[in-house]
Amino acid sequence: MSGGVKHRAGGDLSWPLERAARMYGGEEALLDGERRVTYSQLSRRVGGLGAALEELGVAPGGRVGVLAANSLAHAECWLGVPAYGRVLVDLNFRLTLEELAFLIDDSTVAALLLDDERIELGDALRERCPSLRALVHVGAGACPEGWLAYEELLARARASPPGLPLRGGCDEHELAAISYTGGTTGRPKGVMLSHGNLLANARHNLVATGHRHDDRWLHIPPMFHVAGTSNLFAATWVGSAQVILPRFDAHAVAAAIERERITHAVLVPTMLDMLLRALDERPADLSSLRNVQYAASPISPELQRRALERFDCELAQFYGMTETAPTVTHCTPEDHRRGAAGEEPYKTRLRSMGAPVPGVQAQIRAADGAELPAGEIGEVWVRGPNVMLGYWQRPDATEAALLDGWYRSGDAAYADGDGYLYMVDRLKDMIISGGENVYSVEVESALVEHAAVLEAAVFGVPDAHWGEAVHAVAVVAASSPEGDGGHVPVAELIEHCRERLAGFKVPRSLELRTEALPKSGAGKILKRELRAPHWAGRERLVN
Amino acid sequence: MSGGVKHRAGGDLSWPLERAARMYGGEEALLDGERRVTYSQLSRRVGGLGAALEELGVAPGGRVGVLAANSLAHAECWLGVPAYGRVLVDLNFRLTLEELAFLIDDSTVAALLLDDERIELGDALRERCPSLRALVHVGAGACPEGWLAYEELLARARASPPGLPLRGGCDEHELAAISYTGGTTGRPKGVMLSHGNLLANARHNLVATGHRHDDRWLHIPPMFHVAGTSNLFAATWVGSAQVILPRFDAHAVAAAIERERITHAVLVPTMLDMLLRALDERPADLSSLRNVQYAASPISPELQRRALERFDCELAQFYGMTETAPTVTHCTPEDHRRGAAGEEPYKTRLRSMGAPVPGVQAQIRAADGAELPAGEIGEVWVRGPNVMLGYWQRPDATEAALLDGWYRSGDAAYADGDGYLYMVDRLKDMIISGGENVYSVEVESALVEHAAVLEAAVFGVPDAHWGEAVHAVAVVAASSPEGDGGHVPVAELIEHCRERLAGFKVPRSLELRTEALPKSGAGKILKRELRAPHWAGRERLVN
Repeated sequence: MSGGVKHRAGGDLSWPLERAARMYGGEEALLDGERRVTYSQLSRRVGGLGAALEELGVAPGGRVGVLAANSLAHAECWLGVPAYGRVLVDLNFRLTLEELAFLIDDSTVAALLLDDERIELGDALRERCPSLRALVHVGAGACPEGWLAYEELLARARASPPGLPLRGGCDEHELAAISYTGGTTGRPKGVMLSHGNLLANARHNLVATGHRHDDRWLHIPPMFHVAGTSNLFAATWVGSAQVILPRFDAHAVAAAIERERITHAVLVPTMLDMLLRALDERPADLSSLRNVQYAASPISPELQRRALERFDCELAQFYGMTETAPTVTHCTPEDHRRGAAGEEPYKTRLRSMGAPVPGVQAQIRAADGAELPAGEIGEVWVRGPNVMLGYWQRPDATEAALLDGWYRSGDAAYADGDGYLYMVDRLKDMIISGGENVYSVEVESALVEHAAVLEAAVFGVPDAHWGEAVHAVAVVAASSPEGDGGHVPVAELIEHCRERLAGFKVPRSLELRTEALPKSGAGKILKRELRAPHWAGRERLVN
Repeated sequence: MSGGVKHRAGGDLSWPLERAARMYGGEEALLDGERRVTYSQLSRRVGGLGAALEELGVAPGGRVGVLAANSLAHAECWLGVPAYGRVLVDLNFRLTLEELAFLIDDSTVAALLLDDERIELGDALRERCPSLRALVHVGAGACPEGWLAYEELLARARASPPGLPLRGGCDEHELAAISYTGGTTGRPKGVMLSHGNLLANARHNLVATGHRHDDRWLHIPPMFHVAGTSNLFAATWVGSAQVILPRFDAHAVAAAIERERITHAVLVPTMLDMLLRALDERPADLSSLRNVQYAASPISPELQRRALERFDCELAQFYGMTETAPTVTHCTPEDHRRGAAGEEPYKTRLRSMGAPVPGVQAQIRAADGAELPAGEIGEVWVRGPNVMLGYWQRPDATEAALLDGWYRSGDAAYADGDGYLYMVDRLKDMIISGGENVYSVEVESALVEHAAVLEAAVFGVPDAHWGEAVHAVAVVAASSPEGDGGHVPVAELIEHCRERLAGFKVPRSLELRTEALPKSGAGKILKRELRAPHWAGRERLVN
């Protein structure tokens, strides 16, 4: 009917840097410790990386792995590897040798970049993984024997041909990265993200956050998770200066914000809490901060109050997942401002995950796929140009997760009358106790409303009478506002829950801790690890 | 290699309204005179329009025409016709019966909506155009015999089935609208815009303008041009209130801004000038205005000064064309602010068309397709998800215009070192005088720098000696700051040009007028009309 042509240039991952280098060539791009590169320099370095991929023997479409803390080189891999037609596999450095070898074999990684801390690991992986031909060393230390040095590789490639232009010729549906899901459940799956997926997410972030050229970003979350690079492409597209920290350290974050006049940062609630405590110990001038984004969990009213008291800045929550590259919903600064002022419906919305950003659709669906009315709990289904291509070499899992363009997230939630989503639980984390469904997040939310509780995890444990019984692990501060938090009576917390929850939801057992709960790279509590000892030798339907 | 699936839900034109109705159902959506509809009401009305398309006998993929001033119904056609799988053909009501019949035949329009002012025209068109089966009347007047009344159609369709949901199932590459180019050259061509093209443009506008929910838009430019609807989808996506004016009238614009507390409006420079004059006659409170966008031509420094003196608001320039749906480049409020303060390079940039918005690439190319360095004049090539599918049933023209995903605009321009584009001319408007290339826009810019000149058109006229000679038409105010503008001496203007331009560029003849120059629907000066009398009986390579 239309007689259209086939070009359809939706863009590829070379576009953000191409624009920044053209418009803001002389301005600061990425800042990593003492290293500061402009957008012109960055473009030439990334061009060098593109040329080096030939030398490394990675064919177009081949996989390049990264196993490293955040750094300039790490960010360059995101900006360069897909732009030059290869696929980036950014690996969680918290995994074991066994787990990493499985992922490298699964995606047949041909070249792997590792930093100083992971030299031995690199040698061990090369021995085990037949696909792994080249090891590239990034970092300040000496380049190990038999490895290639990242900076030398770039310099050589840049020399001939010098300053390669960005290729800029990938189809938007071409595979750009394989991002393995956190491993909170079962065998890890490789999420296939296309150029278009990651560009779509960058656009959604540009719209939701209103990125501007004069923003100054601080990148803290690890780049092996898509949440850690979510703002990299958006900030590059508008040519912002971006400071990279190798890892989260509260005092280093405070110092970086003060020194670099940072305006925007992503800080999950736990990090935000630690930053506020660090500032109590050692004050710093954080007045440049305009926008703090968080994800992974809603913020507690107490933490929000402390944050707004300390910073004169906007707070925004994002919810998403690797499969959606990742942004799905957004609780806006306006929501936070009016919620903090106690204004309804904004006050209630602060317990939500926000509403879908323009460009993404999210619906609450029943098990039969029908959309549910407001207030009813169902599964979150997501649709948009940011939804993954599928799972790498897992057609079964892909088929189960994608239906008519919708991604079935496995998250249980309900929507209010204005389209704001309220997370209830991971479907697999739902506890069935005496025939009643208990959503662990609801119990966790009640617990963290207590001033002494920093974080909480609730799950089912085997129970002869109830099938599963509600069990809670609550983290309290070593020294809390109410005295020695380590000694908050368990009975007081149970009573606190009883005032807020139906009887069948109140924990039957509760364990207090003062150290933080184990978390995935994305900051999600690893409930599986907490749950495992209770289920040793038994079987649960979903682990 | 990737094993990806085929869903790829980039979205369709139902998405903006779907989100607004879900999140902002009870809030003001479109306001048209006395009519004010909320997003819930709008969604139901548009659902009714979708159902009515069946009754009108327009098959999926069939063409629905509109020939009307801006109105609620007109906006609903944009929101509903493509969302329900039909193709919208929005026609320029300034065209003659002959011209319109040609377009209706060319795109085989099956149903046509017309307003009160175009009843006779509708009957005449039905007689002439075999494809035209249904005529639909929109407006306050009586519905003519043999026509269908828009509101009755909607009410009937809404009754059964009531409140249709939006279909939401179009592929992003499906044809959404055919928009005929202004007819400034030759036989009009139907630009085929897909759902994805118009959504991409909405996203680009969201990013560039930073649209927010609490914006209040005034829609003035005619909706038959894509510039007139460019912000409709963006503003709907974030759920802004939008006021529709049937046509430009300076006093009506001032009154609407004051009454509705308008924050955002598109006003081409001529409109802005007329608005400022109207305010001199009859003051109004326009303090709500935060952002004025213009297009079609750079603003003169004098007009910018007057505007900034009057409004405490941001100015932003956009450049684009129907084929790119339309936004390509953007001169930001920051550019204007710093340019008005006389700061380089911003001061110079105010003469530019701005730089490509994130998501669109524009390059200056030589005739052989090679990208040219900064400062060299070539053709503007544009690439992005906003670039049209092609020209309707014109494979020859499509092939000439689209190359490897790039659209060749036919505009001659150069870029500065920061990627800002400076329009030099339409290639076809370039004057070849004595073997030298004279870009008419350069001469026009020099003329409008004279305080007495409101607008100017420069073109070549036949000359026995030079081949073509540079001829200028300059419009001066009936009463200008320098006295009776109608009597600014021609010699003074020629001298003014001589101080600014090389000798071969200075007009050899100059005509003064006090009435505005003829313009297309998009506000472009119809140079062809001005040029025609000079070339009567002669042939020019490009007309």
